[in-house]
Amino acid sequence: MRPQDLIEKKRDGHELSRQEIALLIRGYTRDEIPDYQMSAWLMAVFLNGMTEAETQALVEEMLYSGEVLTHSDIPKPKVDKHSTGGVGDKTSLVVGPVAAACGVVVPMISGRALAHTGGTLDKLESIPGFRTDLHLTDFRSILKSHGLSFIGQTREIAPADRKLYSLRDLTGTVQSRPLICASIMSKKLAEGIDGLVLDVKVGRGAFMRESADARKLAETLVSVGKRMGKKIVALITDMDQPLGRWVGNAVETREAIEMLQGNMSGDFAELSLDLAAHMLLVGGIASDLESARSLARDAITSGRALDTFRAVIGAQGGDSGVADDPGRMKKAKRVKDVVSESSGFVTAVATDEIGRMIMDWGGGRRRLGDPIDHSVGFELHAKLGEHIETGEPLITAYYNDEHRFDEMQARIRKAFHLGESPVSLQPPIREVLQ
Amino acid sequence: MRPQDLIEKKRDGHELSRQEIALLIRGYTRDEIPDYQMSAWLMAVFLNGMTEAETQALVEEMLYSGEVLTHSDIPKPKVDKHSTGGVGDKTSLVVGPVAAACGVVVPMISGRALAHTGGTLDKLESIPGFRTDLHLTDFRSILKSHGLSFIGQTREIAPADRKLYSLRDLTGTVQSRPLICASIMSKKLAEGIDGLVLDVKVGRGAFMRESADARKLAETLVSVGKRMGKKIVALITDMDQPLGRWVGNAVETREAIEMLQGNMSGDFAELSLDLAAHMLLVGGIASDLESARSLARDAITSGRALDTFRAVIGAQGGDSGVADDPGRMKKAKRVKDVVSESSGFVTAVATDEIGRMIMDWGGGRRRLGDPIDHSVGFELHAKLGEHIETGEPLITAYYNDEHRFDEMQARIRKAFHLGESPVSLQPPIREVLQ
Repeated sequence: MRPQDLIEKKRDGHELSRQEIALLIRGYTRDEIPDYQMSAWLMAVFLNGMTEAETQALVEEMLYSGEVLTHSDIPKPKVDKHSTGGVGDKTSLVVGPVAAACGVVVPMISGRALAHTGGTLDKLESIPGFRTDLHLTDFRSILKSHGLSFIGQTREIAPADRKLYSLRDLTGTVQSRPLICASIMSKKLAEGIDGLVLDVKVGRGAFMRESADARKLAETLVSVGKRMGKKIVALITDMDQPLGRWVGNAVETREAIEMLQGNMSGDFAELSLDLAAHMLLVGGIASDLESARSLARDAITSGRALDTFRAVIGAQGGDSGVADDPGRMKKAKRVKDVVSESSGFVTAVATDEIGRMIMDWGGGRRRLGDPIDHSVGFELHAKLGEHIETGEPLITAYYNDEHRFDEMQARIRKAFHLGESPVSLQPPIREVLQ
Repeated sequence: MRPQDLIEKKRDGHELSRQEIALLIRGYTRDEIPDYQMSAWLMAVFLNGMTEAETQALVEEMLYSGEVLTHSDIPKPKVDKHSTGGVGDKTSLVVGPVAAACGVVVPMISGRALAHTGGTLDKLESIPGFRTDLHLTDFRSILKSHGLSFIGQTREIAPADRKLYSLRDLTGTVQSRPLICASIMSKKLAEGIDGLVLDVKVGRGAFMRESADARKLAETLVSVGKRMGKKIVALITDMDQPLGRWVGNAVETREAIEMLQGNMSGDFAELSLDLAAHMLLVGGIASDLESARSLARDAITSGRALDTFRAVIGAQGGDSGVADDPGRMKKAKRVKDVVSESSGFVTAVATDEIGRMIMDWGGGRRRLGDPIDHSVGFELHAKLGEHIETGEPLITAYYNDEHRFDEMQARIRKAFHLGESPVSLQPPIREVLQ
């Protein structure tokens, strides 16, 4: 079998066997199959899809392309949370410390900002000194001491995914359910977890805009996880507006710390508490959602979750004082309100555009390795359903590049749609699949 | 616009503008767009197709990626013939000399064997010394003196096609109508022709197995040619069995020479005369098909077509004695009959498999640049509809590698299907489109 025979098989809508998928993924990981053959195959997968069996084989081949961690020396349940990506989504910075404070071990391998969505690593790196490029031995030892550590994908973890991801990014093959599933699950399963809580975002700020697509992705992820013997639950959650009141790296880290300090109001807090509660359920720390939620709240009100976060910041080389005084993070030089030119109820927010503006103003990257400005951020004054008067601020912008202000002001105004009557709001959590 | 935006546009089924296609083809030809992006785009084109306007833009971009010849110093109609590829198809070696002998100038840029199909250049190179890698200046001068010259695609001609073709071959994207059309037309239009006769093959030995596909390809080719101001006609012709009685490089060249010497019986002669006649019509040398056919026959019976071929062989460095004594070409060391193990009427011939056997026995290449054994060949004793008795030969094999004989004998026997009653035969020319 030559790679082109396998490309043609997928092109013509036939199912590849496990051996054939192994041949492709192993060959590609070893640089024996060139990028140009792999990208033609990826496009055929994008357009013709993959069966359950193919998806499962792909996940496993990508997972076993690298090291699969085990933490048998830590006698606690290991559970992670993963989000498919959104705008203003800083829940990892809360649920990690909360779950760890409740007795779950959270070995979190996170990503960076992607397209218009933010990345946990970039948010954490707003904290002066915080390192996410730890060696696996340090990762394990922090995990053992504090029940939580945050790192990026290392060379050892799912190398097939690293290679494939860069290729997909440049060849229009990112948004494919089996490919997304394999990318997520190969990394998450390599963490050495017993269970996983998935936050599958849907809406204008998510990669999946339609509920049906999000549900299918969630179902695929849950099936794969179960077949691999993991406890797994997927929450399908709203991304029709940014989560919480802040978007940007340092400002989101501050918002997360404020929640750990006790501020539990709004959609961001509601979702974070539920995600953490599901982690406790999956980990067997609680047996029903109500008591899990109450354990999560206690971890915050008692200060234990903040203690955990402070300790992890210190252990990963960061300025742990930030946990008590987020003002120690770098601030933007300029602050200005963008006010509304009309009045009405907020009926829609171009959420992806909000994310893109943060990126364009210096808070994101165009390509991997670009430096980013962690201080750029927006405070949102107009959430869905709220009433805004002419002259009231839509957003307070924190920024450094004054020369782009006018362009950004115009884009911000265009991103908010105001109507005469309030819209009916979706709950932050639309569905729970398990 | 980044290449990945154009990949996504095609992936999502949208039409690319002329400017967008230009960006891709020019970028790729200049090595600014990498193979892996182009192959993803090619697969999206394969699966989603192209509109007429896109196909036209692709042809023109590929054509103008290189030099477009003109022969304004030769005051005669310039007409070529092109076949989409078949088994036993040596018509170029006859129609070139016939048309040239009748006053048409034939600037023929040909290809090599591809998959199971033969290539004109390989057949010509069976003639000792014959060179097909001429400089364009020599090509022009032979054309001026003799009205006919055969060369391969040079570096100057449609370089975008050369690059794309190698990539398509390795990425399962050969069999796409717009891509086939652009590949053929960009090369043919670069020859500096006024008109073109297309031989679109259909059947078990062709790339298009279904009549509907062949007709669509023919229609696309004709439309593109017309829009480029060319006189163009497409013959849809039968490839459900090898054309003529011989398959292989030297043996087909001999069969072509025998026709030029006056043997005008059988499907190969019938098709060759009609193709040549259409070239005369397209070139304005004749005004109706009957008189065109009779001019073509005259060119053969008078010996003028053979004279032309002899002269061109000499001008291109070949042993012109071959035109009168084809026995001067290299012969295979071994000759053996493969006899039938049953009796009946020939109802089907695995024509592609016949071509593949010639290739596998040394008469074709696995990859570009492989040496080939021109002497390998088959004489067919069993054409569709003919009756074969047990013990009668199906094929006489001319070969050098004895150690593969048993395997080949088994494959040959499997390639012929015998039935109790004769099949109704298709005419060699199924349809004429113009």
